[in-house]
Amino acid sequence: MDPAELQPTPPRSSIELPETRGFRIKSRVLGPALTNDQLAHERLGKPIALAVFASDALSSTAYASEEILRTLLIGAGAIGVLAFSLLIPITLALVAVLVILIFSYRQTIKAYPSAGGAYIVTKDNLGLIPAQVAGVALLTDYILTVAVSVSAGVAALYSAFHAVYPYRVPVALAFIAIICIGNLRGVKESGKIFAIPTYLFIVAMFLMIGMGVFRSIFGDGLHYVAPADPVALEATGAATILLVLHAFASGGAAMTGVEAISNGVPAFKPPEATHARQTLVVMGALLGTMFIGISWLAATMHIVPSESSTVLAQAAHAIYGTTPAGHVLFLFTQAATMLILVLAANTSFADFPRLASFHAEDAFMPKQLTKRGHRLVFSNGIIALAIAGAIPVIIFQADVTHLIPLYAIGVFTSFTLSQAGMAKKHITDKETGWRLGLFVNGLGAITTGVVTVVIGYFKFTGGAWFIMILVPVMVVLLVRLNHAYENEKVELESEAAKAASEPILRYHSVIVLVERLDRSSARAIQYARTLSPNKLKAIHFAMDENKAELLATEWTRLGLSRLPLEIIECSDRRITRGVLQVIADAVRGAETEVTVLIPRREYHRFWHRFLHDHTADSIAKTLADVPHANVTFVPYHLGTPVGAKVAAEIVADTKAAVSVFTNEPISKSLDS
Amino acid sequence: MDPAELQPTPPRSSIELPETRGFRIKSRVLGPALTNDQLAHERLGKPIALAVFASDALSSTAYASEEILRTLLIGAGAIGVLAFSLLIPITLALVAVLVILIFSYRQTIKAYPSAGGAYIVTKDNLGLIPAQVAGVALLTDYILTVAVSVSAGVAALYSAFHAVYPYRVPVALAFIAIICIGNLRGVKESGKIFAIPTYLFIVAMFLMIGMGVFRSIFGDGLHYVAPADPVALEATGAATILLVLHAFASGGAAMTGVEAISNGVPAFKPPEATHARQTLVVMGALLGTMFIGISWLAATMHIVPSESSTVLAQAAHAIYGTTPAGHVLFLFTQAATMLILVLAANTSFADFPRLASFHAEDAFMPKQLTKRGHRLVFSNGIIALAIAGAIPVIIFQADVTHLIPLYAIGVFTSFTLSQAGMAKKHITDKETGWRLGLFVNGLGAITTGVVTVVIGYFKFTGGAWFIMILVPVMVVLLVRLNHAYENEKVELESEAAKAASEPILRYHSVIVLVERLDRSSARAIQYARTLSPNKLKAIHFAMDENKAELLATEWTRLGLSRLPLEIIECSDRRITRGVLQVIADAVRGAETEVTVLIPRREYHRFWHRFLHDHTADSIAKTLADVPHANVTFVPYHLGTPVGAKVAAEIVADTKAAVSVFTNEPISKSLDS
Repeated sequence: MDPAELQPTPPRSSIELPETRGFRIKSRVLGPALTNDQLAHERLGKPIALAVFASDALSSTAYASEEILRTLLIGAGAIGVLAFSLLIPITLALVAVLVILIFSYRQTIKAYPSAGGAYIVTKDNLGLIPAQVAGVALLTDYILTVAVSVSAGVAALYSAFHAVYPYRVPVALAFIAIICIGNLRGVKESGKIFAIPTYLFIVAMFLMIGMGVFRSIFGDGLHYVAPADPVALEATGAATILLVLHAFASGGAAMTGVEAISNGVPAFKPPEATHARQTLVVMGALLGTMFIGISWLAATMHIVPSESSTVLAQAAHAIYGTTPAGHVLFLFTQAATMLILVLAANTSFADFPRLASFHAEDAFMPKQLTKRGHRLVFSNGIIALAIAGAIPVIIFQADVTHLIPLYAIGVFTSFTLSQAGMAKKHITDKETGWRLGLFVNGLGAITTGVVTVVIGYFKFTGGAWFIMILVPVMVVLLVRLNHAYENEKVELESEAAKAASEPILRYHSVIVLVERLDRSSARAIQYARTLSPNKLKAIHFAMDENKAELLATEWTRLGLSRLPLEIIECSDRRITRGVLQVIADAVRGAETEVTVLIPRREYHRFWHRFLHDHTADSIAKTLADVPHANVTFVPYHLGTPVGAKVAAEIVADTKAAVSVFTNEPISKSLDS
Repeated sequence: MDPAELQPTPPRSSIELPETRGFRIKSRVLGPALTNDQLAHERLGKPIALAVFASDALSSTAYASEEILRTLLIGAGAIGVLAFSLLIPITLALVAVLVILIFSYRQTIKAYPSAGGAYIVTKDNLGLIPAQVAGVALLTDYILTVAVSVSAGVAALYSAFHAVYPYRVPVALAFIAIICIGNLRGVKESGKIFAIPTYLFIVAMFLMIGMGVFRSIFGDGLHYVAPADPVALEATGAATILLVLHAFASGGAAMTGVEAISNGVPAFKPPEATHARQTLVVMGALLGTMFIGISWLAATMHIVPSESSTVLAQAAHAIYGTTPAGHVLFLFTQAATMLILVLAANTSFADFPRLASFHAEDAFMPKQLTKRGHRLVFSNGIIALAIAGAIPVIIFQADVTHLIPLYAIGVFTSFTLSQAGMAKKHITDKETGWRLGLFVNGLGAITTGVVTVVIGYFKFTGGAWFIMILVPVMVVLLVRLNHAYENEKVELESEAAKAASEPILRYHSVIVLVERLDRSSARAIQYARTLSPNKLKAIHFAMDENKAELLATEWTRLGLSRLPLEIIECSDRRITRGVLQVIADAVRGAETEVTVLIPRREYHRFWHRFLHDHTADSIAKTLADVPHANVTFVPYHLGTPVGAKVAAEIVADTKAAVSVFTNEPISKSLDS
């Protein structure tokens, strides 16, 4: 055969098969099925990509400044106005980390234009096991992003509409389900849906900060906000280095989501890397500006975090005032915040399935995660994330306060590994400009490494301990999984070629299992004779002596006796075990290929199946353990055998044609 | 072949297979497995049989008198002492019905010594559909017996130990589970366990009644009992005929369980019929005496039913007095009552599965109900009854008051049909003494028919309506089920003999599904060549172009090209549908037998299965719809392929032997 002949042929279509009901429902929910050649078209332009990949990072400005203030004010007792003077320096320190990260990730995208998340970079430069650590840490954070963002969004919702509070868990789960379905439909469409809230939030923030800046320069200046809860602010206090580091760790959550773009480079329209780097810088600039702006407002207006009103809400309220127009702007700010918080979860849905598929392609996660679904997205990964994200929501009853401390440690672990990998790459490859690259990524690695340690230390008792146990345990499990896959691969592929041309076994024995003499067994006998084996016999397991006797009499009377029927006592009624015994004997010596024919009646009404026991299936299952025992189901179709799955006319044709055969002498295999 | 050769052969045992874990657990819980030849030994002697079959009937005396009194006193307002003078006549009327029933059933047992329940008798004389009505009515009552008896027993328990009350539903379910397991172990053993409470109850009742008689003749006479709840008894009242009939209907529950013996004749030691008739008379005498005795005590002592204390408990308390010895006797009476009430459920467990198996044998219920289990009892029926009995317990929260009105209508329906059947039999057969038989059974039929109407009328709104709807609906469903079975049987058996000797199809095409070139596919290719088909090809569905190209290259390079490989584009990733299309094309015309070989990797660690998707299984399931598409699983065993199910050495031998084969030229089918 010429290799040219081995080109794929288009599927033949001489018969038009009707669609199954399941497929029709799926197509209605998810949109029409996509074929592989449509894959390349599923790309994002920069504005949509910014909305898809930046919602996680940008939305964290909604709580990052507040988290820092809470640590400064509550974590160390009332240290008073000193807290407000520390807020801006700490914010600036975090923005400095952000700048380093943005420059580092620009390097990464340049070096890995096809797919440059922490996993690939770490694997490429530090090896597979560190890559598992980076990947698992990031996957954990993606799961938490879903839980935290959706819970925070629902909290914003029930703060406005208190009636929602008792239903916060179902509402959060419903949000997850909606985002999940959106993503199953395909990333481009979900981008369109999710672009709006991201841009609304950006507008809301810049409007608020801009108004603040304008008022402070040209207006009557910004006044202190009266604390919502009555607290006594002291004029003095001691700022220890520990407190500052603790506050810094609390603000680390602002950085989650920064890696999203580098992980999702292939989703950009070409030239992917260029577009991705531009989008990354835009995102960094937006995030930094908004973060500093919000911290500046909070510091200038001395906003004290409270249980009833977020810092952001207090700032908006103070700036827009109590006029009707001001109230509308306040509500707009709150709504935009709620929407982006809920939809930040979407970043995880864009990245988690892709990252999981990388793990799976390297055989560190189940292969099913590499499968593209109905709409060419990694459906299994999307569904897995929805389930994994729902679990913390249920456990912590959608309570953000309990979820936050688990957060950020994972993402900084992966930052560190990824930047260290990049630094190593510069040293190894020594490409043009490697010194600058090494400086950027080396600085990135050291910075993020220090931040990881700081977060791990200060958030340990709050919940980071769980992640610090979970990640290594998961890595061990994934490595075990990998060994299972690798062993299997080695065994399956060793000398496969030789095995494919091994001679056939000396004997071929065909055994027909006969329960009674009916058309179904008759079909199996007819098929058995097609196989021309060395040995052919029918076996009946006698659970009821009368039935066995009747069968034997019929067999002789009908002249079937040329096909030997063996009746085996089965007084313990364990037919499966009896069959196993017989077949285990038959394959003994490894010179015989045994084909076990099981007549199987196929019903076209599903409830008819329940009227019969499933001996055939349990026999097949048991025989699966015996080498060279090849189980064949010989179907006999009862009634009008038209499932939704098969065109009626094929079946009808076949049956009609079969039944007009005349009675000829029994075949070669029986005559010999 | 000589028919003599077709005698069953004992199972071969050249290989000793280890037992599965499931079987070992089953054997520990239920006792060692029994073989068919041990069936005859599972018979009951008369004393044990009385305990097994009479507990339902006898236990109803615990509440029958009380139910009559309740109707007389509460149902019609306080009609005063007249109620106590009506109690004995109504009891005597019911005992008259009982005597008629006992004589009728003696006739039945004589005529049907092998198995003479209402189902068989009705079927034999009135036809299959009336038999379904009789059977379903009785099955319904068996389910209610389980629910009512267990609930009443638990009520007796929590009356003594109030702490049990909140757990009454789980306790009732636990009782059902215990009785279920006892019955799964086999009826003889369960008889032994259950003999004790039945005899304790008989002793307790006769002791109490005897003491009452003794005291009233030789002692100081019986005094009125002060009502537990303060009620005003009026000296006069009007006894309407309606009230008397209503009270009579309430007492009808005393008759449930009378049919148990006739239904269970084959469980007696031979001569079955004689022993059964003797036991029936003993049971009737005991039941009648106890019923009259208890009613006499209640009437003489003017016992008023109350919520806090049953009539039986009040009678025992009044007779034994408040001395310590009297209190012990009181507690003994209560304990015996509780035990027999719980264990009355056992009668249903003895009869329901047998009756269900009759239905199933006539193809009016699922065939699985005819299968004898581990210990030769009808395990599926026992489990079905346990589940069905648990449902009303859960719905009515083990509340007897709500269950009682559903009761008795079913059993009287089946009495009527069965006696009518016997009457018809006497007329048809005209055997010796048929006139007397006709009189006895005719009287029985008329009496029970009238009682059925009375119960149906007076208990309708209380719950009998549900049974009166349920029974016909169930009968319609069973008849539909029967049609499904009958149609199937007709289709399967018509010209089965001719079909068995039909010629084989003209062509035999073997298609090997190849995902990649590994040892698993190699095994399938090796097996394929054993079959010597007319046409042999391998098909790969290309979901990933690179993989397909690699496979094609390998195929050519390894010289496998003599076995044609067809690569089919599968850009919609719906491989199952692709296979269906190809196979539907291949069988078209009905001249080709198609064997589809699916290589299947078998894992010895169950979790390894989850690492792969189950395409093989879903392909097989889909192809089951195509006639002449015979699906063969060709197993390849990964790792050490020793399940608990197969002896290690078979597999090891086989594998070793296979691997020493030398590389010979490719087989005949490929050379041709």
